[in-house]
Amino acid sequence: MNSFPFPIERVSIQSARCEVFSELGVSSQVEAIESIRYYFKEMPCRTLGDSVSGRGGATVCHAARSAGTERDAMTEEQANIGVVGLAAMGASLARNLAHHGNTVAVFNRHYSRTETLMNEHGSEGKFIPSKTVEEFVHSLAKPRTAIIMVQAGAPTDAVINELADVMEKGDIIVDAGNAYFKDTIRREKAIRARGLHFVGCGVSGGEEGALLGPSMMPGGTEESWKTLGPILKSIAAVAEGEPCVTHIGTDGAGHFVKMVHNGIEYADMQVIAESYDLMRRGLGMAPQEISDVFGEWNKGDLNSYLIEITSQVLSHVDEKTGKPFIDIVTDQAGMKGTGTWTVQTALSLATPVTGIGEAVFARGLSSESELRKEAQEKVLQGPDPTEFLSKIANDAQAKKAFIEDIRQALYASKIVAYAQGFTEIEAGAKEYDWTIDLGAVARIWRGGCIIRAKFLNRISDAYGSGESFGSLLFDPFFKKAVENAQESWRRVVSTAAQAGVPVPVFSSSLAYYDGLRSKRLPAALIQGQRDLFGAHTYGRVDEPGAFHTLWAGNQKEIKQS
Amino acid sequence: MNSFPFPIERVSIQSARCEVFSELGVSSQVEAIESIRYYFKEMPCRTLGDSVSGRGGATVCHAARSAGTERDAMTEEQANIGVVGLAAMGASLARNLAHHGNTVAVFNRHYSRTETLMNEHGSEGKFIPSKTVEEFVHSLAKPRTAIIMVQAGAPTDAVINELADVMEKGDIIVDAGNAYFKDTIRREKAIRARGLHFVGCGVSGGEEGALLGPSMMPGGTEESWKTLGPILKSIAAVAEGEPCVTHIGTDGAGHFVKMVHNGIEYADMQVIAESYDLMRRGLGMAPQEISDVFGEWNKGDLNSYLIEITSQVLSHVDEKTGKPFIDIVTDQAGMKGTGTWTVQTALSLATPVTGIGEAVFARGLSSESELRKEAQEKVLQGPDPTEFLSKIANDAQAKKAFIEDIRQALYASKIVAYAQGFTEIEAGAKEYDWTIDLGAVARIWRGGCIIRAKFLNRISDAYGSGESFGSLLFDPFFKKAVENAQESWRRVVSTAAQAGVPVPVFSSSLAYYDGLRSKRLPAALIQGQRDLFGAHTYGRVDEPGAFHTLWAGNQKEIKQS
Repeated sequence: MNSFPFPIERVSIQSARCEVFSELGVSSQVEAIESIRYYFKEMPCRTLGDSVSGRGGATVCHAARSAGTERDAMTEEQANIGVVGLAAMGASLARNLAHHGNTVAVFNRHYSRTETLMNEHGSEGKFIPSKTVEEFVHSLAKPRTAIIMVQAGAPTDAVINELADVMEKGDIIVDAGNAYFKDTIRREKAIRARGLHFVGCGVSGGEEGALLGPSMMPGGTEESWKTLGPILKSIAAVAEGEPCVTHIGTDGAGHFVKMVHNGIEYADMQVIAESYDLMRRGLGMAPQEISDVFGEWNKGDLNSYLIEITSQVLSHVDEKTGKPFIDIVTDQAGMKGTGTWTVQTALSLATPVTGIGEAVFARGLSSESELRKEAQEKVLQGPDPTEFLSKIANDAQAKKAFIEDIRQALYASKIVAYAQGFTEIEAGAKEYDWTIDLGAVARIWRGGCIIRAKFLNRISDAYGSGESFGSLLFDPFFKKAVENAQESWRRVVSTAAQAGVPVPVFSSSLAYYDGLRSKRLPAALIQGQRDLFGAHTYGRVDEPGAFHTLWAGNQKEIKQS
Repeated sequence: MNSFPFPIERVSIQSARCEVFSELGVSSQVEAIESIRYYFKEMPCRTLGDSVSGRGGATVCHAARSAGTERDAMTEEQANIGVVGLAAMGASLARNLAHHGNTVAVFNRHYSRTETLMNEHGSEGKFIPSKTVEEFVHSLAKPRTAIIMVQAGAPTDAVINELADVMEKGDIIVDAGNAYFKDTIRREKAIRARGLHFVGCGVSGGEEGALLGPSMMPGGTEESWKTLGPILKSIAAVAEGEPCVTHIGTDGAGHFVKMVHNGIEYADMQVIAESYDLMRRGLGMAPQEISDVFGEWNKGDLNSYLIEITSQVLSHVDEKTGKPFIDIVTDQAGMKGTGTWTVQTALSLATPVTGIGEAVFARGLSSESELRKEAQEKVLQGPDPTEFLSKIANDAQAKKAFIEDIRQALYASKIVAYAQGFTEIEAGAKEYDWTIDLGAVARIWRGGCIIRAKFLNRISDAYGSGESFGSLLFDPFFKKAVENAQESWRRVVSTAAQAGVPVPVFSSSLAYYDGLRSKRLPAALIQGQRDLFGAHTYGRVDEPGAFHTLWAGNQKEIKQS
């Protein structure tokens, strides 16, 4: 190794190409690689890489390996995709990309993470690590495509700007973090003005999904999708033979849809929690028994990842205490903001997502520890659920029937939550001028993501039929499903109210369904009140225009417009 | 009039004082006024003002009148308060101020509104109209205090800046519009940096309240309150002998509290609407019969402005058709944003305001006309409320009992809505570093505002007792009220679910109550799910710290922190 003509650190072909060429007495990368290969020919690729301290080590490794396998290694020398941010999600995504034949440039602000990735997973595929943003950008083939997976907010803005400063016209920056869609719209506009592409891309499936196949929701231009699409398709989850990724729409469309996905996830988890609560506190069932019920449910219409893991969580036994795991976990649900955004956005769009709203608030209430503690001390009176339901619980037939009622309530409420979520996507598309294929959205949620479920095939069918309709509840399949479920659903809401078990999403979804099907709503009274106290005017059912009654005067009606 | 020594337009004492003095051969305002009085001595004050074309007319009128009544008119010549923006609310506020002995400078971007105010109400008190912002500011005595009542958003910013450009250190700008509290925080900071005071002041009570006595919620500095307080107290509504205004807290505190006031108003109106709906569609009662019920309710615990006007609206008959008014009004409820803000803010604070949330969403659903039309065409199946409740409706005793159940459900849900609203104010105060006296807030809502109610005396008592507690539901009076109401409340929610009448706020408030009193919530399951799919960690009931289970591995638990 001592015979190598210059310090080993400078073999990084990306960062010191010209000098290397001249000092090696070669004139092209291919020759350079051959030269490197010559000097280190007896050394196994991995060892070679490890032996080179610091910068350039992995590149040498890669260059040597490339040179050893094919003469045209030069073209491989540049990465076709890059990942910035190598925490759990970013590292998994980079590995997933490498596993699928991509050459992956990797960069992290603190180099130690890059080293860890290279040391632990460097041999899983082709990686080109860099220590600086400049080096990273230059290690990418054009059009350069870099996926950012860093903390949302200011850190994301910082990385975007650093990349954009080095990148050139036509290059693509992809933000795969959980950005707020309005930030994405803003960033896309700013980056577009600099001649680059910016793609906000929702990624669902957690760390495991990122590694083994996530569901992905990219926004951005059609042009960027041409480059990015094949790469994302190579690493996406596959459902029914189709990769779980599609071009959602321009600018913030991808992050918007990801946001609503998460909102639906909140509602989905809450209806499962309400079902559990009714069985646990209501029917007095043990966690394992309830786990078995969810296991059964997972074989039918409710088949889904969340039902599956619910069964798993409920059957888990805490090692330390020997108690059911569920009983040693604090009952305060955390959240990270996407559910909150979904509801806040729906409020701005005046589109009701009551199920998601109640689910987010239910988590909020659960975490109000001081308030809950005080409530226990003050002993707010109310029925005892187990006592109230003891008759049903002690009658095998009645118990079985009530569990089936709960299943139907869960199913109907879940349909409402999805209907509301999809309606929010439609409202968002209208507001922000996106063309979103709802059928395609349902298809890419069938695999990889947290809400993946058999159920989504039905939604995909519904929106894929070509018929346009305003709510999933109008689709013949779902309409019938809800109609079939509603007797059970009403019994559950009714019983829970009497038994004192909180079922905010079950009941609010039912209220939404009943509100939607009502020919006349009492909103007319609200309009009357508003006109009386604030002269806000009202419409008439028999004549267009806005009207005001002189309530304090002679009660005459005046047409305002 | 021809003998007047210079063009009549220049008699505006505010704008051309010096020249007027010299040309009249006088050296003080008092002498100037006397001189004016001399020239016009035979002309009645009002006619004199009218006869002066354009600028200065009203001032001449005022000057002449002042001179005629007391020699020391000079000090009266400047206004102690000003109003910018003379649309319905602003004009009413200006008149209210004038009625209570204030000299009110008035200004409107389009002078025609100022003229209208002067022509129609100029004789009601002392007004000093101006045509320009400069003239307006100079017509104010120091520290100059100007109340802005213009459209929220950009128009408000524009007026603030125009005023600030002319005003001087220590002057006070009051925004009495429905500003978003975060805008108020921003504006207060910017105006404070310029040495002026900025007060965001919530005003409730509509046009009538503004004229006859509103409930007011000013924020801003203690110092500004010293000047502003006496003026606002002079025009506020009076409840139990106290003016309905108090200094809420610094910067945006006033507008925050006004926002939550409006949010509570949404919930209050919606529970009334749900009660009406149950009687109308459920029990098949005629509007007049329901009006009588509300009239009765207004004599008891529910005594309030909203219940009173509900009775009035329901008994009103449409002149054109002879039908009940409520039946000719379109059932699509409008909204102007404060309810939406209340819920969005609560979501950011992770403080559940489920009742307000459902109320806002219920208005949203009512206005989704296309969706509702399609729902009618597709005929979503479900029970017919009138049919379902016919047995109760046809049994006088049972009907009376169910109406009483509805009253109790309304009462309990209303208490929950207020409890949630006050909790949001507490959370906001904590987040934005305000010291808010909740008892004082309840006291100033007893009169003048839309939600004024007997009930607020009880809230005021609760928070006035000095005992600190986390929720109104823990106060002995309200705890007992809800406990007494709950059997009825549960029956109503239960029956409505079976009958197909949507009662989103009744049911969601009940779910909140049951959630709050639950010792264990199923949120533990949600934490288990989150740890399994996203390694979000969970807490243990028996040990502090964050834990993660290796779900995909050996199921071991790892302490994370």
